[in-house]
This record gives sequence, structure tokens and C-alpha cells, in this order.
Amino acid sequence: MHRAAAVSLLLSSCALACAGPALAQQRARARAPAPKVVLIIGDGMDQQQITIARDYLVGYQGRLTLDTMPVRSGVQIQTVLEENPAVPEYVADSANTATSMASGIVTSTGRIGTTAGTDKDAPTIMELAAAAGFGTGIVTTSSVTDATPASFVAHVSNRLCESPSSMAPADAATPGNCPADLKANGGKGSIAEQIAASRVDVVLGGGERYFAQPGEGESSKTVRDRAAENGFRVIGTAAELAALPRGGRVLGLFAPVTMPVQWRGAGGAQAQLVQRDGSGRVVLPEPFSCEPNPAFGATPTLAAMTSAALARLDDGRSFALMIESASIDKQSHVRRPCGQIGELKQLDETLKLLLEYAAAHPETLVLVTADHSQAAQLVSETSWLAGLNAASPGRFARIRTPEGGIMGINYATNDSDVQEDHTGADVPLFAFGAGADSIPATVRQTDIFAIMLRHLKLSPP
Amino acid sequence: MHRAAAVSLLLSSCALACAGPALAQQRARARAPAPKVVLIIGDGMDQQQITIARDYLVGYQGRLTLDTMPVRSGVQIQTVLEENPAVPEYVADSANTATSMASGIVTSTGRIGTTAGTDKDAPTIMELAAAAGFGTGIVTTSSVTDATPASFVAHVSNRLCESPSSMAPADAATPGNCPADLKANGGKGSIAEQIAASRVDVVLGGGERYFAQPGEGESSKTVRDRAAENGFRVIGTAAELAALPRGGRVLGLFAPVTMPVQWRGAGGAQAQLVQRDGSGRVVLPEPFSCEPNPAFGATPTLAAMTSAALARLDDGRSFALMIESASIDKQSHVRRPCGQIGELKQLDETLKLLLEYAAAHPETLVLVTADHSQAAQLVSETSWLAGLNAASPGRFARIRTPEGGIMGINYATNDSDVQEDHTGADVPLFAFGAGADSIPATVRQTDIFAIMLRHLKLSPP
Repeated sequence: MHRAAAVSLLLSSCALACAGPALAQQRARARAPAPKVVLIIGDGMDQQQITIARDYLVGYQGRLTLDTMPVRSGVQIQTVLEENPAVPEYVADSANTATSMASGIVTSTGRIGTTAGTDKDAPTIMELAAAAGFGTGIVTTSSVTDATPASFVAHVSNRLCESPSSMAPADAATPGNCPADLKANGGKGSIAEQIAASRVDVVLGGGERYFAQPGEGESSKTVRDRAAENGFRVIGTAAELAALPRGGRVLGLFAPVTMPVQWRGAGGAQAQLVQRDGSGRVVLPEPFSCEPNPAFGATPTLAAMTSAALARLDDGRSFALMIESASIDKQSHVRRPCGQIGELKQLDETLKLLLEYAAAHPETLVLVTADHSQAAQLVSETSWLAGLNAASPGRFARIRTPEGGIMGINYATNDSDVQEDHTGADVPLFAFGAGADSIPATVRQTDIFAIMLRHLKLSPP
Repeated sequence: MHRAAAVSLLLSSCALACAGPALAQQRARARAPAPKVVLIIGDGMDQQQITIARDYLVGYQGRLTLDTMPVRSGVQIQTVLEENPAVPEYVADSANTATSMASGIVTSTGRIGTTAGTDKDAPTIMELAAAAGFGTGIVTTSSVTDATPASFVAHVSNRLCESPSSMAPADAATPGNCPADLKANGGKGSIAEQIAASRVDVVLGGGERYFAQPGEGESSKTVRDRAAENGFRVIGTAAELAALPRGGRVLGLFAPVTMPVQWRGAGGAQAQLVQRDGSGRVVLPEPFSCEPNPAFGATPTLAAMTSAALARLDDGRSFALMIESASIDKQSHVRRPCGQIGELKQLDETLKLLLEYAAAHPETLVLVTADHSQAAQLVSETSWLAGLNAASPGRFARIRTPEGGIMGINYATNDSDVQEDHTGADVPLFAFGAGADSIPATVRQTDIFAIMLRHLKLSPP
């Protein structure tokens, strides 16, 4: 064989050999299982919350399931003023942040799936997925009508437009404009009614109270009745959840509003104002540990709800599933560190289950993030200025950890008796599974929508 | 040609072709430039600090150089009690955290390069690099004897053993045991004396005061004199820094203690207690912007010092360079948000310069991290419970940003007039360059030592 011919043969054969992996990849794609995405939102789960929970749950050298996630990013949160959307607001709420993740838009606090100032509806990932024939699911420890889950399925001017009874005429003191969202006025009705009329396959959480009301303009039929007519099997107990037959759509409402949390401080202990004795010396609160919350009772866990959702959605089609651990935020607002820790434990156990699912279904992308940062700070159990008689000016708890240390937990964003404020720091984003490696190290919150869309091969709206 | 022979030829040729990249890689490694590592520590630079600085410097939608880093990890901080190193402490200081990064050990707060309880010296990355014949450098906006830089070059029982005049007899109220660190007692002397006697090539920062003292047991020679005898060119002005000849070792001391910060609140404004009017209504402080700090004057910037350090270390050898932006922490302690922001700006500008260096020298690994979290929180300019007359119980500032928004900055870890406490949350780690991709998404602070060691191909001690 002539040398040039041999080289040419080699080259063309090499060309074939080189094309091999690309061809194999193409074929694999053709028969690849349908992509799936799970978005876990730890409401208010900033890095302070994660460290506090780790120190208690697995010790300061231990690893949460969260800590084993292979990819980490940071999320830049964007919020604008309703009155002037050209001006930023530096601290968000769960409505505008969930709207950013669900619909890829930047909006004002309180808004659910609608634009700041102009009140236009923005299509959500769940709507786009359902329109493409994919499965969809929403699981939360809050009311399913609360800001985070609502933003994935509803469009109202304000998170307070939660149920028919919340749609009263607007007054200057109430943000948003629920009356404009009434169906009679061309809107889509309250959040509960929009969920009942939705095409979502699985909706699990609290909020039974909001579905027990008559719908707008109805004399007898409740929102729950309308949900059943729309094809939802409506359930209300952990036993019914465990006994669900395969197939069909389900609306599970396991608490009147927010589901009870798993843990509380021993005897109900929470953070409190630091006291001073007769001579003005600081008297720190007694340390306490966490214990099971008796009110939790037979409430389904977040993991049990997630497992039920997966069992229904795992039918070979693509699906989009949003799971919220809501009370990290809610318990932090009311200065209950053990409530936060127990709720983050629920998230971590749910994540473990999802990572097992994703390992067995490598076409799955699992994202874990928070919507905004919260008030709680991990501090020393005594200020390093204790010698100067200094202590927290806010609410303060000392938590005794199972490994024998004591954490100080500080809540001091405001001086009210009611609750703390949010904070504005970027939040973490963790990823596992298909496509996780291509997520940049810093993203904007709206990018989470784009990442989910791309993974599901859906076109932007 | 027989078909089998052709296939065999194809296979062996393909084998050669396939081995090509591996061989090329091997050869590249053989002639690869010597690996270099730069560790940038933003003291107290947690995610609250980064978000506050971004919002001010580039706007809420903008990107700092930090935000362009391709790899992000989270750093789990470990601290133990001096009295019982089996028990964790959940909030660290700059001494024990820098020791974790410099030497890969977990120790107690206040310790510099020594073990908790047992007071053994732990070899530092700079010592190991120097012993291998590599270049070494330490750059800081603090005194070069302060906890962070000290931990990379010195070994004492406490950060307060800073200079000959600090080595007074221990009393029960002072942590650590400086007398045991005296050379007369078998120790290595004060931090300043250990720096003067060290093999570090470049030491730049503040702390001139500590080198102007006579050394231990000296009648006339100062620590500075001893540094000069040890081969350091000792300089003290930006002009001398700019005019440095190539080659040789340098000790630059540009301020008596901490270097002045670049920015301050307009007219010196800082956070303050929220006032109430005669009827008890909250009166929020007036918003202010940031302005250049007149005290900064002709102080060299962190970028200028870094540039000088690089110019000296870039001689073809491997090097380890630690750069600290110290006053993010210091200004947060004293509730000066503009000081923090201006200092983080210095870090970000320095990072830009280093990324340009690393792009031109791809054998360079650039790490950016914080040592511990700090007190400052980004909050709304008015509490969302403002209607209930609620406001921060601590020190509070309203900062007007160039883009026209207003940030609330809250400092409320203690009620003293003196300064805030640290917080305990995990801190961010960003990486760029050679080996960055192999850094896990969550690491322990001691892993930073291991990552640097591995990159420099140094054996663990």
C-alpha cells in the first residue's frame, strides 16, 4: 500500500473511530429517559441556618446530606419596588423570590407570578411543563396556598389573596389588589381556587382551611369540591397518603394552615430577651436542647410526602417537582431555633431520598436552594465582651448540642415582640445529577428558572 | 492487505493516536512551569458582606470580580476549647482559623500556629514552601503581626504575644502564656521577632510600631534592625514600594498598626442606635453614602502591595502568597459599613489583578475565602414591622447606594459601645486556575492547607 494511501486509510478510519463516541452519545440521547427536575427550597435557609443545623444534628465536624452535594453555587437575589420597578429593594420576601425561580422574572415583594407595577401574569415552570405533557408536583410543609408554592401555580397581585375569604375590597393599608384578581373582575380568582383549577398532578401540604370555603360566587360548593371535580383525589391524613392507589392526581391537605414542625425547644423553650440582675449584671438564659414537638403527632413528614409525589410522577415522562421546607423561615421569624433545626432535618432527610432517586434515574437534576436569608445568627454562648457585661440586644437562646457544646443563637433584626425580619444576603444553591456541573458558581435567582427549563428541554415563554 | 492485518494496523495506529494526548500531557507536565498558589483571605467576608459590597459597588444586578470566579465551595469552620480540645466552640476568631488554613490543624481561639491544650508548634505552608526552596509572601492591610498573617509564619500561644513589649508575665485575665514563648524560656519569641527571623521573601502591611522596639534581651537593636540583618530590605512608604529594585527580600511596614481604610461614611458617619421621638416613635438615622477616607492619604493599596509581591516572587520558582484584606472584619466590628465596603473593594481589585496573573500563568491556583463570619446583616431600610414601631435593637445604618436604593445595615450581636462579635456560619471559598475544578463543594477549613500543599506538590508534614 502506498504510504499516502495508508495514511489516508488511517485518517478515515480514525475519523470513524473518533466519531464513535459522538454517535454513541447521539443514540443514547435518542433512547435516553425523559429528563426530570426537582427543586427543593429551604425557606430562609441561609448559611447561618445550615451551620446551626449541622452543629446540632451531626456535630461541628459532621456532614449533612446537603454537605455531600457535588456542586455549589451562590444565588444573587433581585427585588424591585412596586411603585418604581427601576429602583432595587435589597431584601426580598418569599413571594417575589419564588416568582423569580418559578417564572424567571424580577418583581416586587408580595407578588405571586405577576410583574411589578404592571400586574401581568408570567408563565411558570409548572404551567410550561404541564403544557408539554410532563408531570408536575408541589410539596410543602406550609399551606399549599402560601407564597412559595403559590408562585409555581398561581398569578395574583399579592400573596394575601390566598382564598375566597381573602379577596375583600382593597384598602390603602393592604398591599396588592385582591379585588382585581377576582374572576368577576377578569382575574383568575384566589390562590386556592387557582390550585383547584390547575393541571398540577400532585399538591401536598397544609392549608385545608382555604379549601373548605365556598368559591367565588358559589352558594354551596367549596374550593375542595371544585378541586375534586377537576380530577383531584383530595386527602387529609398520613394514612390516606400511605394508602394512595397508583395513578391519578392528588391534593393532600394535612393541616388547617402550616403543618406542625417536628421539633421544639425542651418544654417549648425559645429565644428570649437577656435579663439583668438587681445590680445590672447580665443573666444569660439557661441552655436547652431540642425535643420532638408533641403537636407534630401523625403529621406526614416532608420525606413521606415527597416519596408519595415521586411514586405518582415516576411514570416514564419528564416531570418538574418543587419541594418546600417552609418552617426554617417561619420558626426563625418567631425565634424558635429548635423548630428551625428540626425543619432543616426534614429537608436533609428528603434530600437523601431524592439523591437515591436521582442516582437510580440519572436523567434527574436535583437543585437545593433558599429563597432569601433570615435573621438568626450563630454566635458564641457568651459575647466576647462578656467581661464588659455585654449581651445580645435582641432575642437570644443557648442551645446545648448532643456533642456537648453550647451554641448561642441571636435574633436581633428588630425589637418587636412579634417576629424578626428577613435579611438580604445571597443564598446557597446545591446541585446533583444531570447538568449539575454546568451551573456557574454565581447565578441570579431568575437563572434557576432557566436551568430547569433547559434541563426539561422546554422553550422559554 | 489481509482484513485482520488491516484491522490490526488500524488498531495499533489508533492506539498510537489515542495515546497521543496522554503522551503530550506527560511531556507538558515534564516541562510545566512550577506551580504557584495565592490564598486571599477576606477577614470576616461572609455572604452578607459580599452582598452589601456588591449592592453598593456595582448595583444589585451587577457582578464583582468575585462573582466571576468559576468555582465555589463552602468552608466548615472548626474550633475547640483550650481547656478541653474534645469539646467544640461554635464561633471562631482570626487566629485559630488562620492556623487551620496555614497549618491544617484545628485549635482554640487566639492560638497562632500552635495546638490547643498542648501548645505544640504546627509547621505552616510558608515554612514548608521555604524549606522546599519556593518563594513565599505575606501581604495584609492589618499589622503584619496580626492574627491572620502571623499564623502563616509564627508560633505562639496567643495572638497577643505580638511584639517584645507584649511578652509580659501572664496573668489569669490574659489568654495564652506569652512568657512561655520568650526565647529565654525556650520559645521562639514574639510574633514580630519571629517574622524578623523568618525566611519569608515578602512581608507587606502595617505594624511598624512593633518592629521599632528593642528585641528580647537587646539593649539597642530593634526588631527592625534584626530583620535588616536577616536580609530584609525594610521600607515604609508607597514611594519606596513603587521604586523597589528587583530581587531580594523585603519587609514593608506602611502604618504604625492597621493600615487606614480607603472609604468611610460621609462625614465619618457610621451605624448608631435607633432613636425615638418624644412620643416614642422610631426615628430612623439619616441615610448616608460612602466617601474616600481622608486618613488613607498615600497609603499603598492592597493591589499595589500585591503587585509588588508578585513582581518579586515571579522568578520561575513555585511560590505561596497569602493576601489578607483585614478591615472587612475590623470595620464590621466597629459598625462602619462604608469601611467594610471600601475594604472589600480593595480585595476585589486585588483579585482582578491576580486573575490576570493566573490567566498568564496557568500553573497558578488562586483561592479566595474568609476566615469566619461577621456581625453585619443586610436588612430593609425600615423593618417590615415598622407599622408596629419596630426597629433594630442594635446599631443601624441606612446606606444610599449609587443606583438610588437604600440598604439597611444591622449590627446587633451585643449591646456594648465597643464592638460587635463574630458569627459562626460557614464561609465561602472561590477558586480559579490549575486544580480549581477538583475542589469539593463543601470543605473543612483545614482542607485549604491540604489543597495548597497538593498544588505545590509538597509532602504533608
